[in-house]
Amino acid sequence: MALVDLANGQEVATAVHAYANGVIDEKLPGSGIPLEPDWALQDPGDYLEVFKKAVPAVLKESGIDPTDVIGLGIDFTACTLIPTKADGTPLAFLPEWRDNPHAWVKLWKHHAAQPEANKLNDKARELGYTFLDRYGGKISSEWFFPKAWQILDEAPEVYAAAGRLIEAADWVIWQLTGQEKRNSCTAGYKALWSKREGFPPKEFFKALDPRLENIVDEKMSRDIYPLGEKAGGLTEVAAGWMGLKPGTAVAIANVDAHVSVPAATVAEPGRMVIIMGTSNCHMVMGVEERLVPGMCGYVEDGIIPGFFGYEAGQSCVGDHFAWFVENCVPGRYEKEAAERGLDIHELLEEKAAKLKPGESGLVALDWWNGNRSVLVDVDLTGVLVGATLATKPEEIYRALIEATAYGTRMIIETFEANGVPVKEIVTTGGLPNKNKLLMQIYADVTGRPLYIASNVQGGAVGSAMHGAVAAGKAAGGFDSIVEATRQMASLRKESYQPNPANKAVYDQLYAEYVSLHDYFGRGVNDVMKRLKALKARIKVG
Amino acid sequence: MALVDLANGQEVATAVHAYANGVIDEKLPGSGIPLEPDWALQDPGDYLEVFKKAVPAVLKESGIDPTDVIGLGIDFTACTLIPTKADGTPLAFLPEWRDNPHAWVKLWKHHAAQPEANKLNDKARELGYTFLDRYGGKISSEWFFPKAWQILDEAPEVYAAAGRLIEAADWVIWQLTGQEKRNSCTAGYKALWSKREGFPPKEFFKALDPRLENIVDEKMSRDIYPLGEKAGGLTEVAAGWMGLKPGTAVAIANVDAHVSVPAATVAEPGRMVIIMGTSNCHMVMGVEERLVPGMCGYVEDGIIPGFFGYEAGQSCVGDHFAWFVENCVPGRYEKEAAERGLDIHELLEEKAAKLKPGESGLVALDWWNGNRSVLVDVDLTGVLVGATLATKPEEIYRALIEATAYGTRMIIETFEANGVPVKEIVTTGGLPNKNKLLMQIYADVTGRPLYIASNVQGGAVGSAMHGAVAAGKAAGGFDSIVEATRQMASLRKESYQPNPANKAVYDQLYAEYVSLHDYFGRGVNDVMKRLKALKARIKVG
Repeated sequence: MALVDLANGQEVATAVHAYANGVIDEKLPGSGIPLEPDWALQDPGDYLEVFKKAVPAVLKESGIDPTDVIGLGIDFTACTLIPTKADGTPLAFLPEWRDNPHAWVKLWKHHAAQPEANKLNDKARELGYTFLDRYGGKISSEWFFPKAWQILDEAPEVYAAAGRLIEAADWVIWQLTGQEKRNSCTAGYKALWSKREGFPPKEFFKALDPRLENIVDEKMSRDIYPLGEKAGGLTEVAAGWMGLKPGTAVAIANVDAHVSVPAATVAEPGRMVIIMGTSNCHMVMGVEERLVPGMCGYVEDGIIPGFFGYEAGQSCVGDHFAWFVENCVPGRYEKEAAERGLDIHELLEEKAAKLKPGESGLVALDWWNGNRSVLVDVDLTGVLVGATLATKPEEIYRALIEATAYGTRMIIETFEANGVPVKEIVTTGGLPNKNKLLMQIYADVTGRPLYIASNVQGGAVGSAMHGAVAAGKAAGGFDSIVEATRQMASLRKESYQPNPANKAVYDQLYAEYVSLHDYFGRGVNDVMKRLKALKARIKVG
Repeated sequence: MALVDLANGQEVATAVHAYANGVIDEKLPGSGIPLEPDWALQDPGDYLEVFKKAVPAVLKESGIDPTDVIGLGIDFTACTLIPTKADGTPLAFLPEWRDNPHAWVKLWKHHAAQPEANKLNDKARELGYTFLDRYGGKISSEWFFPKAWQILDEAPEVYAAAGRLIEAADWVIWQLTGQEKRNSCTAGYKALWSKREGFPPKEFFKALDPRLENIVDEKMSRDIYPLGEKAGGLTEVAAGWMGLKPGTAVAIANVDAHVSVPAATVAEPGRMVIIMGTSNCHMVMGVEERLVPGMCGYVEDGIIPGFFGYEAGQSCVGDHFAWFVENCVPGRYEKEAAERGLDIHELLEEKAAKLKPGESGLVALDWWNGNRSVLVDVDLTGVLVGATLATKPEEIYRALIEATAYGTRMIIETFEANGVPVKEIVTTGGLPNKNKLLMQIYADVTGRPLYIASNVQGGAVGSAMHGAVAAGKAAGGFDSIVEATRQMASLRKESYQPNPANKAVYDQLYAEYVSLHDYFGRGVNDVMKRLKALKARIKVG
């Protein structure tokens, strides 16, 4: 949560309120009901607490007059789906549904709807629908309709009781304004909607399952609102939670990644924004409609009005390094870091930075959490090739960083090969300020300069920019997001330029990455899928 | 070093004397001259110290009358090559040569003669020689002639100064008896010699390098002695080092792995002996001559007179787990082990034993130190496939154990497919008594029962058995190694039988191993070699 200055985009005050129930992936709060593998839930009550706690905190910290707050925007993970009653009450709030896991929020990284995703992809292809072409040819288990269908498959009573199935982003706006106004970004990127074609037709949903035929009209809405618009004003109740003026402008909801793009100074084609954190999200705009294989999707006006917004992603980046530190770093390294007052990542970065590209003899595939782009396959897993008895932890650490850089290069090259140019990269998120080695490796591997957005919380600043546009120029805000970008977004001074000698070595290593990528990822040897299937059978017993 | 009871093969007393200079792989003792990658040397002086220190120690510990010691045998690593003057004085003892790395002992795992091994293999094939067929089609950089040729290539002055190039095993016997009597085991397994054909002809060596034409007659010997024969009696000087009777029978030298076979009760075909330690060595006998691809070799009478002795190997087993423990086990595991008074391997074994086969979703290729059998390729490297963000250290540890078991199964299946049956396995060496999980995994993966030789130091007991045969029945010893085997060798009571349910899962995992083995190891994708070559270029700069 950030309070942002309209004059320059600076974060005047920030506050964090941790979700009491966090990510729920082992058992349901209260009942202790165990969850199956690949489940990831959240508690909608946690979302509202943020407004009650963090907004008053930033107001207090900043010391500003609450009436000077002209607008409010939010960004959210997606697809993060809540089943609610018709009036917006989450089923998880109701005693009769609270002990059913399907009544809770399915978080974006809930991966248990893979069977439904597979069936949806197969059926769309079989029946000759073209809407999947906008999403690289298939959608993942993370998306809206697989999650909704999983509820129907496994808990039809929950599906029947749900008057609405709604993105958490839109549900929050509903709670703030009293208006159910769904945003075009999640609808376009996660729910198969497009400005020109709307949702897939009833016949398609009926072909999936007759009970799904009217899902859009029964559980969703066909009224989809563009980014930057005003959803409404704060209700008395919501204003009271936060200590803000009732009626304060609230923007249509947005997605964490997409809202970061204007906050990273980008409102035009050719400049890719990568939000680097636990995962990487790649956003770039184009002036023309292009089918780019294996992308998460493209949505007209999906990032900035007037352009096609293309999105790609890597499911495991910061998470990758966190896994490594948690599971593979020997005690003597931990001891050395403690003795020298370093974070363990800092120590590993220092040691890894002493290595030259190619010196370790290692190449990894960055699929510890599947591959989002360009293969769109959650059943892929990690590979490390080239280990010897002389291999050191920092060599593996560096190989994992390099692997994520190769994955990004694969995405960039796929964009460019399909007519969406990527000339430079602006990074934002948690990682760019933490790891200089990683930034230089990305520049060397991709052959593109890397810049860093100057704001620390790109999502919050971008949301504030949308809040300022929702408020409008007359109220002291802006008329368009492009105008807000010019005023409120900037880059840091330092940048990372590709080193040609390193780039030459990485070109060779990248060629190895590509051959392993295609061998394991494009069906030559489906060993990863067989191992995962065997693992699942063994765990069931 | 062990003093062994002729009546039952029991180790009456044992002693260990560590080599002062150990394995020399970074810089030469004294001069500090740095060694290149892949070098591994030893100091011949260290070998003699063992006799001076460890033999008196076992005599003292046992309290027996030294005149009751009727014979002495030794086993050694091979090929471990010493350049000496014509009188047996190692060049490394001489001030004028001491600072030249090529004057020192090239230990078996010195891998820097790969270019020479490659050239030798190519030339033998080009000229149509058939002797490589006995060694699976190619020999490795570890063998006698590549090492000798490396000396000639890189230090012709050392080659010229060397009156003899000799296995350390035979050199030690020379020091004990005053007789240069070379054994058939190292000659057969490491120097291309066979009972029927002798060494390759001069023309072959000349084709390699004109200066090598007469290597056998100039630097070696064509007099090769069978295992179990008497080399001679202890000299006054050598007897004095040890406190033994001059003239005590000394057996022809033997190799650590081969001499362990009779010590493991095996003197017949069908029963494979695996010496499990830092690496695995697989020994099995056959009644017929068979060409088995990718084996280290077969030698007539090479293990037990009357049979063809077949040898295969895996370069990295215990070393593999040691690498893992050193580089990949997090501090919290070390802490838990310390708190519970466990060795870290014991803790990992305990955690890994709780997993079911297939549960980790991991498959590894056990090539952290190259592949000896069946691919005979030191340039292959390690692979791990199937990692996810949920992968735990004990899962990787178990996957590495399983990988070595798959490697053993590959060897067994290759033997059987080529007419050398393997019905059961007798293990010996350091690992079988340390890790029950490993033993059960080997039984489950190979589908063969595993037994354990009852003696702890199989090499020492087997050497003592050969010493007893060298002494002969009249002196209280035995007339043949088969007779000594019946009297002095036995198995432990416990054994490991294959679990059919585990075997069924491992059949599936082994199929995955085989496909990855062939993809990375048989030239479909030579990524490992390219990475190693790139690494070598980068290190040179």
